[in-house]
Amino acid sequence: MRIFIVHAHPEEQSFNGAMTRTAQAALAAAGHEVVISDLYRMGFNPVSGRHNFITVHNRDYFRQQAEESFAALNDGFAPEIQAEQDKLFWCDVLILQFPLWWFGLPAILKGWVDRVFAAGGRIYGGGKWYDQGVFAGKRAMCSLTIGGAPPIYSEHGLNGSIASILYPINHGMLYFTGFDVVEPFLVHAPVRLSVEQRAVELARYRERITGLSTAPIIAYPKLAEHDEHYVLNASAKRR
Amino acid sequence: MRIFIVHAHPEEQSFNGAMTRTAQAALAAAGHEVVISDLYRMGFNPVSGRHNFITVHNRDYFRQQAEESFAALNDGFAPEIQAEQDKLFWCDVLILQFPLWWFGLPAILKGWVDRVFAAGGRIYGGGKWYDQGVFAGKRAMCSLTIGGAPPIYSEHGLNGSIASILYPINHGMLYFTGFDVVEPFLVHAPVRLSVEQRAVELARYRERITGLSTAPIIAYPKLAEHDEHYVLNASAKRR
Repeated sequence: MRIFIVHAHPEEQSFNGAMTRTAQAALAAAGHEVVISDLYRMGFNPVSGRHNFITVHNRDYFRQQAEESFAALNDGFAPEIQAEQDKLFWCDVLILQFPLWWFGLPAILKGWVDRVFAAGGRIYGGGKWYDQGVFAGKRAMCSLTIGGAPPIYSEHGLNGSIASILYPINHGMLYFTGFDVVEPFLVHAPVRLSVEQRAVELARYRERITGLSTAPIIAYPKLAEHDEHYVLNASAKRR
Repeated sequence: MRIFIVHAHPEEQSFNGAMTRTAQAALAAAGHEVVISDLYRMGFNPVSGRHNFITVHNRDYFRQQAEESFAALNDGFAPEIQAEQDKLFWCDVLILQFPLWWFGLPAILKGWVDRVFAAGGRIYGGGKWYDQGVFAGKRAMCSLTIGGAPPIYSEHGLNGSIASILYPINHGMLYFTGFDVVEPFLVHAPVRLSVEQRAVELARYRERITGLSTAPIIAYPKLAEHDEHYVLNASAKRR
């Protein structure tokens, strides 16, 4: 298996750092190949703009998707974007490793998605989306740390359920581009864990990581279950 | 009224640009004060890190929230962060103006939240959150453009409902810090609108903008309706 970990944390010594090092070691020991994009260490620029491209489609008006489609046809992505796209095509499994910041991805990782997930059929578009997406057959998983304890993230918890918080990421970014989305791996409040508890969490992560190919995935409706307006059809709703 | 618009679009001529200019003109004409943070034009850096601060709490281990709490006590925020916090305290209404990118905020705006919304009681913390939050009594609204047509964003739409997509922003960022969250203002697929249809949409936005103080807000449970584990209590669930 080829695993691509996109890692987004400013502190190397953080629990996120320990999780990625644990994954890397466990996967390598099992004979898998691992590539890591450590966005903070790379100094990745998350701001999307003309610098995403070496080509120019319209000099007078910047429309991101039009520039992406043009770049897709003309090999026009900037080297740092092309390199990330290559890693996506190379991998069998994508892992997003991050601390939950403001109920979403840290900006450096959100911008990695904004810039790398390009239109025009390169990463999506032209009928290639959801289960018909470019990355169909690959798996993806969010692995994250969360400041609060589980109850506040339960169904009736004050902060909202984990499923509702991660929906735009799991459904909107990962499933949208064709990935089978593995249930997220969560570690709550690592800052308040003892050394022993941290070891237990890392062992739990090692188990998930080495079982990635069979870990349960989130069941989402298929593209074919929707009508011509992209609304779920009646028979699928009854299910 | 004092209105603070945080604007996040790389193209000045975009429909987002037209919306912010429309809001600015309509509000000024009605005698309101308007401040705009045009993040792309400011060259705002969305990556959170030590450069958020002029103080250092722990030189050997960077923990964002601990540095924020220390900075809050010691006037230690970097000038560009302090300036944005000042605008938040100054305003009566906050507007986030953005194109929906990957079912969320463009990274430049997500990073504005990551960096500016600081812990330690400055923007949240110490029991100050949700309806007890620092910004209680102020209003906030998302104003956004969306690529697709309304049905795909309906309750059973392929892309998920607008409410579920915006939940981490409306509930997790705006309500979390105390704002009353006005129903979002949406313009679908401005790229496919005629000049006349664009004028209609801008007139509709002008109406919303000048009626901000009475526009309907999203009803969220109150902090007091939760138990000691921050789970909604039984009587609130029955409602």
